[in-house]
Formats: sequence, C-alpha cells, structure tokens
Amino acid sequence: MPNATKNSTAMANAIRVLAMDAVQQANSGHPGAPMGMADMAVALWSRHLRHSPTNPQWLDRDRFVLSNGHASMLIYALLHLSGYDLSVDDLKAFRQMHSKTPGHPEVGITPGVETTTGPLGQGITNAVGFALAEKLLAAEFNREGHRIVDHHTYAFLGDGCLMEGISHEAVALAGAWKLNKLIALYDDNGISIDGQVTPWFIDNTPKRFEACGWNVVGPVDGHDIDAVDAAIERAKLSGDKPTLIVCKTHIGKGSPNRANTAKAHGEPLGGDEIKLTREALSWVHEPFMLPEEVYADWNAKADGELLVNDWNARFDAYKAAFPELAAEYVRRMAGELPANFSEIAVQAVAAAHDKAETVASRKASQQALEHFTAALPELLGGSADLTGSNLTNTKSTPPVRFEDDGSVAVTELGKPGRHINYGVREFGMAAIMNGVALHGGFIPYGGTFLTFSDYSRNAIRMAALMKQRVIHVFTHDSIGLGEDGPTHQSVEHAASLRLIPGLDVWRPADTTETAVAWSIALANKNRPTALLLSRQNLPYAPKVDADVITQGAYILAEPSEVGLKKKPVAVIIATGSEVQLALHAQAELAKQKIPVRVVSMPSTTVFDRQDVAYKKAVLPNKLPRIAVEAGVTDFWWKYGVDAVVGIDTYGESAPAGVLFKHFGFTTENVVATVRKVLSIKK
Amino acid sequence: MPNATKNSTAMANAIRVLAMDAVQQANSGHPGAPMGMADMAVALWSRHLRHSPTNPQWLDRDRFVLSNGHASMLIYALLHLSGYDLSVDDLKAFRQMHSKTPGHPEVGITPGVETTTGPLGQGITNAVGFALAEKLLAAEFNREGHRIVDHHTYAFLGDGCLMEGISHEAVALAGAWKLNKLIALYDDNGISIDGQVTPWFIDNTPKRFEACGWNVVGPVDGHDIDAVDAAIERAKLSGDKPTLIVCKTHIGKGSPNRANTAKAHGEPLGGDEIKLTREALSWVHEPFMLPEEVYADWNAKADGELLVNDWNARFDAYKAAFPELAAEYVRRMAGELPANFSEIAVQAVAAAHDKAETVASRKASQQALEHFTAALPELLGGSADLTGSNLTNTKSTPPVRFEDDGSVAVTELGKPGRHINYGVREFGMAAIMNGVALHGGFIPYGGTFLTFSDYSRNAIRMAALMKQRVIHVFTHDSIGLGEDGPTHQSVEHAASLRLIPGLDVWRPADTTETAVAWSIALANKNRPTALLLSRQNLPYAPKVDADVITQGAYILAEPSEVGLKKKPVAVIIATGSEVQLALHAQAELAKQKIPVRVVSMPSTTVFDRQDVAYKKAVLPNKLPRIAVEAGVTDFWWKYGVDAVVGIDTYGESAPAGVLFKHFGFTTENVVATVRKVLSIKK
Repeated sequence: MPNATKNSTAMANAIRVLAMDAVQQANSGHPGAPMGMADMAVALWSRHLRHSPTNPQWLDRDRFVLSNGHASMLIYALLHLSGYDLSVDDLKAFRQMHSKTPGHPEVGITPGVETTTGPLGQGITNAVGFALAEKLLAAEFNREGHRIVDHHTYAFLGDGCLMEGISHEAVALAGAWKLNKLIALYDDNGISIDGQVTPWFIDNTPKRFEACGWNVVGPVDGHDIDAVDAAIERAKLSGDKPTLIVCKTHIGKGSPNRANTAKAHGEPLGGDEIKLTREALSWVHEPFMLPEEVYADWNAKADGELLVNDWNARFDAYKAAFPELAAEYVRRMAGELPANFSEIAVQAVAAAHDKAETVASRKASQQALEHFTAALPELLGGSADLTGSNLTNTKSTPPVRFEDDGSVAVTELGKPGRHINYGVREFGMAAIMNGVALHGGFIPYGGTFLTFSDYSRNAIRMAALMKQRVIHVFTHDSIGLGEDGPTHQSVEHAASLRLIPGLDVWRPADTTETAVAWSIALANKNRPTALLLSRQNLPYAPKVDADVITQGAYILAEPSEVGLKKKPVAVIIATGSEVQLALHAQAELAKQKIPVRVVSMPSTTVFDRQDVAYKKAVLPNKLPRIAVEAGVTDFWWKYGVDAVVGIDTYGESAPAGVLFKHFGFTTENVVATVRKVLSIKK
Repeated sequence: MPNATKNSTAMANAIRVLAMDAVQQANSGHPGAPMGMADMAVALWSRHLRHSPTNPQWLDRDRFVLSNGHASMLIYALLHLSGYDLSVDDLKAFRQMHSKTPGHPEVGITPGVETTTGPLGQGITNAVGFALAEKLLAAEFNREGHRIVDHHTYAFLGDGCLMEGISHEAVALAGAWKLNKLIALYDDNGISIDGQVTPWFIDNTPKRFEACGWNVVGPVDGHDIDAVDAAIERAKLSGDKPTLIVCKTHIGKGSPNRANTAKAHGEPLGGDEIKLTREALSWVHEPFMLPEEVYADWNAKADGELLVNDWNARFDAYKAAFPELAAEYVRRMAGELPANFSEIAVQAVAAAHDKAETVASRKASQQALEHFTAALPELLGGSADLTGSNLTNTKSTPPVRFEDDGSVAVTELGKPGRHINYGVREFGMAAIMNGVALHGGFIPYGGTFLTFSDYSRNAIRMAALMKQRVIHVFTHDSIGLGEDGPTHQSVEHAASLRLIPGLDVWRPADTTETAVAWSIALANKNRPTALLLSRQNLPYAPKVDADVITQGAYILAEPSEVGLKKKPVAVIIATGSEVQLALHAQAELAKQKIPVRVVSMPSTTVFDRQDVAYKKAVLPNKLPRIAVEAGVTDFWWKYGVDAVVGIDTYGESAPAGVLFKHFGFTTENVVATVRKVLSIKK
C-alpha cells in the first residue's frame, strides 16, 4: 500500500535522527543498526504491517520481531511514531531505570514489543514459534468463510543472528514446516562488531536459506523503500515456504563518517558527527522535536482501528456461527485454563495416587499428560528427537505434520497434530516454544535429556525473564541414566537450573509428585517450569495426602511410619530418585532406634515461596538436616544442612545400579552420614 | 591405497558383528550407526588414515573424530582391529564400570580416541579446531623441504550433528578459514531417533555446505567402499576448502529386519535378529571370535610404525636444520609452558602490583595478556565478535587471516596471526577451542559476555570433563554492565559456572588478582578456567603480598588497616567488583567501632582445594560471615555464611551506578547487614 502523499524519506530520517539522538542522550546504545534499517522499516511498517497502535493486544495483529535487539531504538521510534503509548519523554529516557525504553526491547515493558530480544539468534527463532502458532491456530479455528486467524510474522535480523547456530535450527524448522507467513528481512550490511565480516562470515545466505526450503527474494537495495515494499509484496504470495528478503544496507546510513563502519555499531555518534549527520540529511529539527507532517505520515492509529473494527465484525460473525469455537479461541488466546482444570488436576493426581505404581517419573509424566492433554487442547507437546525416551507424546497428541501445499495435515483425530518432532535442536525447540507461548493459544512443552538443558539454557532463562508459561520436560536426570556415561549424565544441572531467577524446577519422586508438578506447571501462567524426570523406575512413596506436595516440600514420613514412637532427631531431605533411598535409610535407622523424618522436596523453588511458619514446620530449626540428591552438593547448604550425600564429580558409563552404589547412594552411606552428623552435633 | 588382497567386505562385517554383539552383551547401546558406517570406516581407516596403533600419541597422526559418538562401538571395533591397546575383553566390557569402552568415546580413557563425543554437533566442531590447529602449526613450524606438521582431520557425522545449531557455526568457520585438510563424512541414512527424518529435516545438506564455502563430494553409496575411497582421494586434493563427503547409507545395514528403521538406532537387536543378521552376512563366527584373516587385513601396526619411523627421520632432519624450532614444537605439543613461565608470571603480577591502577578487570586481563602473549607463543586468542569489549587481543596477537589460496596469512609480525575473530558464535568458539587444545600446540582462550556463557555451556562442561586447558574470558560480568539490561546482565552465571565439576572460576577484584588468575589458568594443564571480568573500572585493592591470591581466597584487610586495633568480630567475603564495597563497609564499620575482616575470594573453586588449616585461618569457625557478590545468593551458603548481599532477580536497563544502588550494593546496606548479623548472633 504505497502512498504517494507520504514523504517516505522523511519518515525514515525521523527514525535515524531519533535513534542517534536517543543513543547520544543515553551516552550508550547502538545507533548504526536503526539508521541502517530505517528504510526497510518504512516499507514494512507503513505499507504492510497490520497492527493497531491503540490495540496493541489485538489478537490477529501481525507480529513483528526485532531479532537484532540491540537496534532497539528502531522499534521504539516506530512505536512512538505510529501512535503507540510511547511518548517523546519515554524516548528521552532510553536506557534509564524503569523506563519503557530499556537497552534491548522487553516484552511486557513496552506496548507493541512482542518478545524480548538481544541474545542473538533467538528473536528469529521466536518468530518461527509465532508463525507456527499462527499456522496451527488457523488450521484449528478457521472455518469456511471465516478466517479469524490470519496474520503474518515479520522479523528483522542481522548477520549476528545468522552466525548464531540457533538460526540454523530455526531456519531448518521453518522450512520443514512450510511457514509461508513468516517473512524475515535480513539487514545485510557486511559489518559486525569486530569489523567488516568477510574474514569470519562468508556464508552465501540466500543459498543457505534455499537449502533449507525457503523462498529468497533479493538482494534488494535496503534503502530503496519501493524495492523493499515490492519484495514484501512478493513474499506474501508464498503458499508453502517462508521467505527471506535480503536487504543490502549501510550501517549508520546518514552519518557521513560513521556509515559502513563498525564504530557505528555500539557507541554514540558524538555531538560533532550528529551535527554532520543532520546536515547530510537536511534535518533541521532539534533533538526529539519532529515536524507534524512526519507524525501524520507515520500515524497508524486510524488505519489500525479500521483493521480491528473489521476483524471484530468478522469475529462477531464467526461467533454467531460457531459460538463454542469462538469462546474457546478467546479463552485460549487469553491463556486461561479450562474452567474444570482443578478437577482434571485432581483426577490426574488421584489416578496416580490410586494406582501407586512403580514407574520411571518420565513414564509418570506421560501418564499425567494423558489426563492433561485430553482435557487441554492448548497443550502443544514436542521433543528434540527423543520422543520415545522423553515420553512427551500421548494418545491426544499425534504428530504435527504439513502437507506439500503448506497446509497443516489433519490427523486421525480429525484435527491438526499436537506433538512436534523438533529434531535434534534443543535450543531451537526452547526458543520456538517461547515464541509459541508469546503468541498465545498454546501451552508449549518439549523434551530432551536433562544434560542437554545446557544447549537450551539461555532460552530457558529468556522464558523466565519474559514470564512465559513454557514447560521443559528434562528426562534422564542423573547418573541413573546409566550406560550412556558422563556426557549424558546430569550432575550439576538440577542445581544450576534452580539458580535461574523465575524458573520453577521440579524433581518429583513418584507418580503423584509428578502429577502435582504438572498441575502446578500448567497453572503457572507467568512462569516457566523445568520437570526433571528419571529414566529408571521409582517406587511409589506412600502418602496420606497429595495436596501437601503443592508446597514444594513436605513431611513424607515421620519415624512413626517405620514403627518408632519417638520424635525425630534429624531430617533427611531428598528429591526425586533419592527419596526412596531416604526412606530406606529411615527404616534402617529406626532399627538402630534413631528416629528421623524424611522430607521430600520435589521443588525447592516452590518451597522457597512458602511462608516461614510452613518452612519451620517442615524443617524445624533445631533438627540437624542431611540432604540426599544425586547431584552437586553446593546447592543444598542454603537449607542449613549439616551434610549432603551428593556427587561432585562426573559420572561414569555403567549400569545405573552400579553407579549409585559406586557414588555412595546407598542406605549404608546415608545411615552413616546421619549418624556422623548426630555424633558431631551431640 | 586400496589393497586387492584384503577382504574389505569381511573387514566391514567384522565391525558390524562386534557392534551388535557388544551392544547385546551390554544390553544397552547403539548398534545401527556402527553397522551403517562400517563400509565408510573400511574405506577411511584401511586406505587413508595415517596413524600408528602402537604410537597413539604420534604428533603428526591424522585425527579422527566420531562426531556421532553414540556409534562408539564403531571406533572401539576399529581401534581393536587395527591393533591399538584395546582387547577383546575390553570390548566385552562395553559400557561397564571403569572399562576402556564407555558408552560414548572418551578421550584419555581409550587409546586412539581423540575427543569425547556424544553431545551432538560438538564433535564436528572439535574437528574444526583440530584442523585449525594443524593449519596454524604447519604455517608456523614447517620450513622449505620440511613438512613436519602435515596431517588430515577426518570426522564422521550423522544427521543429528547436522541438525544441531552448533554445526552451522562449525561449518561456517571451517569454510571461512579454508580448512582444506578437514574431511567430513556424512552418514546420510535418513533416520533419527524419532523415525524417518523427512518431516523435520529437509535440509539440502550439500547445498548448505557449499553455501558456507565447502567442497562437496557425492552423494556416494556409503556401502561402496571403493566409491568412498575415491571420494576421500578427491577430498584430499582440495587446497582451499574443507570437504564434505555425503555417504548414503542404511542404518543397521546387515540386519534383515532392523536395517533402515529407527529401532536399529538405540537398542540391542536381540538374540533372534542377531542370529538372522549373522546368517544374512554369512558370518559363522561366535561373538567376539574373529578369524585371523580379518585381524590380518585390519592390522595397521606395521604400516603405522613405518609412518612414524619415516616421520621421526624427517623430524630428525628438521631438528638438525632448525634445532630451536624443533625443541619449541616438541615443547608446545607436550603442553609444557616455557621454562621461564614462573618469571613471566611474577613479572605480570608485579607490574600490576606496582602500577596499582584503577581499571576494569577486562582491561587488567588485557594488560596481563600483554605479558603472557609476548612470552607464550602458544597462546591463541579470540573473541565471539566482541574483541574490543572482551579485550582479548594484544600487541603480540594480530588477527588470524587466510589467503585466497587457503594458506595462512603472514601478519606484520612476520608470523601467522594469533587472535581469532570467531564471529557471533559462542558455542562454536568454545567447542573449537576444545579441539585446538586436544590437538596440542596451543593454549586457546576466547571471549564473550558472561551471560552468553549460557550459549557455550555444554562445551565448557566438555572441556572440564576432558580435562583440557581452555580459558574462557567472560567480561561484563554482572549488572555492572549497565544499560544493555537484563538480557545481557549476568545474575546466576558466576554461581552456575562454579557448579561445573573440574572448571576453575575466577572473579578477580583488581589488576593483581586478574594477573594471578591468568597465571594459574595457564599453569592448569588439565583444567579449563573461566575468568569473570568487569566492564566497569575497579580500584586497586592494596595488599602486601600477591602470592596469597593463588590460594583462591585470602585475608585482604584486617581491622587494623582501617585503624582499629581489635580482632575482627565478623568476616565480609566478597568477589570481583564487590571487594571495593566490602572495603568501604569495613571502613564505615570501623568508624562505628566494629572491627571486621575483609576476605577477597576471587576463586571459590581454588579455595575449595586448600587445606583445612588455611581455610580456617581465612574463615575462622567462630566469626560470623557475610558474603557480598552481585549475583544469586544461593551459592554462598556453602561457606557457612549468615547473610548474603546479592541479587536474586533479573537486573534492569540503567547506568551501572544506578543499578548497584537500586539492588542494594551500597556501603549502607552492607554495613546494615553486618550489624544485623552481629545483633542476631549476640
């Protein structure tokens, strides 16, 4: 929709000037990228992007992701100019405490920002998640004559994103999934922080994308707004492939001395160069003062409201025709659980409790998932090529597949699939799940071995920072994995995941704890969860009441349960597969007339949020404490323990039973440790 | 070197049978991949690989990397058959405790295994490191008529490795670096654990590699030994590009019912199918009993000794012509530091001590590196596109560059460069550094922001597991990074790195601590190190003796140093940028007549290795302890602290000073915390 009456050059220069002035004022930031991408932004934002500045949460808006997040002033300028609730004062507060314009774009802080970007490569991967969610929701909810889910996902990205390995995972999956409504614009400026990229970046990027099933348009002159506009127009015609538009640009475009240099990248231009740039652009306005015509040309409020009104009318028609579907769509997009969720959760836990089975907790997870996936159509599972090991699939979640024409295949259940084969792409899976969660309509969960949480770690952190409900199913959670050996055996992972602020971590001991962990993870609307699950079978730990599990830690067995009518003289705290060991030690100690309490602590993060009274009831100040977990010991001292039975070296390749014995996870060793603590304390 | 007298089919079938029998005996493992790659292995190992089973450490041997490490029985069979010190009994102990045949190949455990593989994508990336090291060493040490460094690096890899993002980083760099002596053989069998890969893996792999500057040969029939042989022959002709040989294979080849199925991947074939496979292969021999002819055909001892003898003779000639160069090569490959290393270290520390400068610790690191890189030609630096921020380059380390013909460019210093622009590829950098260290001849170090240690985390772990001297320079180590905001601010990273077994972590407070940290990292022959360095300036912390820093923690300031002639009543433990804060608090408390000791603890991991007496001298049992670190608090309880001044949430985007104040890193807060602890303890 080119508009002859608009002054596109001025629109682009407004971005350039705002970017250089805001960075200068903050004395910190990245002016070069927004200046280089300004023309691309004019083409996309003023001619294609379907959005509504006054309705930033409009459900069917196009999604825009700035994958090269250091170019944050680009999106802030665009939001401000388009009419979002982002004032000149907000721009002046760029990179200042509690402003709406932090150094990198942060979702939840700034209206119109769809995802937090900065860690390179993850934005484009989030965008794949957005586009996947759109495609699956469209297949599920649209009906003949009613296209209520119908939007594009656009991403800007730079060569930094393309160098990151995760971009390969994202690109490969977008191609395999035929995400034709994903359009990525590559800011091909040939410069990264270290300089002209040729010595370290010789990729033929178009060829690389074509090799992964993408449509490639260009290279086009990224400063020719009409050319970029035409390229986007072409990209929108794709029915079965995502599109990359290669835009040749000059970093710092407009700055006479800094353009095309690495110096334009990450530091203010400086007063003198800003003056020269103003002259070169013939820009006569003071910093942060823009002419009314520019605002008028940029203002997207009226157009956006027309779009929203039109969609609302169409949605009303849809609602009239399909009232249940419409209600379900609204519920799903709002991230609300079904009204009967508590009931379902109770059923899942009760079923586990009643069966009291001895199974691996990964199997217990699948059993819980059978309940939850049957009742919650928003659950979108997956695995990084370990489906049969992670047990993330259920009867309700056949694989997601795509037809040759790009459409979503209908499964034997008469609907799109709900379990994704991510391939061996852990980081990609995690960042795509973040995109799916941000889009709305789904609760994504995905599996891999716990050790490979290392690969996806920064995306897990990003989910926590963004407060997104993403659930990681990490199986094979310790040396209990056995023969695969130390490369695959988690030792430090449980502890190190617990250090990520805002992430809930569960390491359940049996089927009920696993079902409860799932129920809390699902109810955690604003928090990601990691479930650490065993490969090996775990006996059911009898308990009167499963409700108490929701507190994260609880008294599992008092001495009375092993026939000792005495008050406990010590507490053994254990998690996951080591809870049974704690119970064995308790029984053995009882024979020796030493009464101890066993506390199961499936979630330290949840327990830490309980009130002091509860904490003291579970872990009385006066009782010595011994922690038992097949992981590094350092973590446990925060609970005031006197000893830890753990493992501070790498594991070995051998059957699990041999390993547990070798590393001291034996009843005798736990008993001896408790006795030693008691003798010292005397 | 095809040999008409050898029975190549039997040689390949011997691998197949050993693999299926060993997996069956272990009742665990992956038979399908070794069976599928057996013919490729015959072509490479019996016709090209230049190695010596009786001299597995021969310096100029070809390096072989099994990137798809789950196929471990392939390499064990090859090593056994070729004549390495790996017996039939070792094979029978596959995947058993303390055997030489663990579940995944582990360097240091099995002669002939060059690197530990299993975590997918890292093996091929290590191989890039091997090939880089070879190329740089050849450029540095070879002389006209003397090619003492002249070997290939071969890697086998599967589609799992190719799906992993890190493979993109490895492939892109190998292409940019024109590593013509890197030859990768892709086991293209179309099957991954989840099944036929087409729904999730549609990459046109040849096109993808060509896009990154590789030579691609094939697809060839991976079961046609002569065809693979010819492909390798062609690959060896490449002068300026690495080569990918695409080998079309059948997973589980030989097994009538499991071949070409995902079931062949990760479980034993079972007795019945093994019987059928023996029949199909016309293999009449009992498990682990191989005919002498097969051993004779495989035996590479005599050929290998000829190769070594020839090289030794050539090396003698080189030594005669260039005695110093030869001695230096031997020293470097042995990983021995120069004889005057201690002197150099003393100089570096003394220079820091004498200058007593206020600089960022990243700058202090560069200052130390000026000393060390000038004296240690084996130091090979680099940065993931943050050279100017990480300050990893020095006067002695100009950038490594390659000429169009594939040769290493000579820098202005008359030698190859010594600082690598890895591009924005943190994980790739880390795994390449592992390969460089494993090859020998260099001590690699590389920089990025601390937060992005998340991206490379599993490769850091692998360095620790493999006991390799790799040094990570992680700058911008806390909220002190400032305006870039929470995506870039480390909060949990220092603590979570300390949890990785076998990794040394340093967070130095000033220039001397930084110089000492470097000296210990360099002397740590069998251990990787992470140096966590500040973006912001840190004042010099006056100390009498820098030697004590080597203990990891030490008494920096007693109350007497702030004019209080009393014994301390509490200890403040601090690291890095918070040491100055501890000193300010000490001074303020002194004004209030409260004598406290300040302990600087730059390395908890080193301190943990000290004897009990020293630990008690630094942290007397009776004194209350308060830890101060701009990171998560959980970690510190292991030191028996009574309180921690830390940060358990994400940071914010704002200038560093504002952030430190906002998050309670103020003299007042530390003073108040100490007073509170003392009042409770009373």
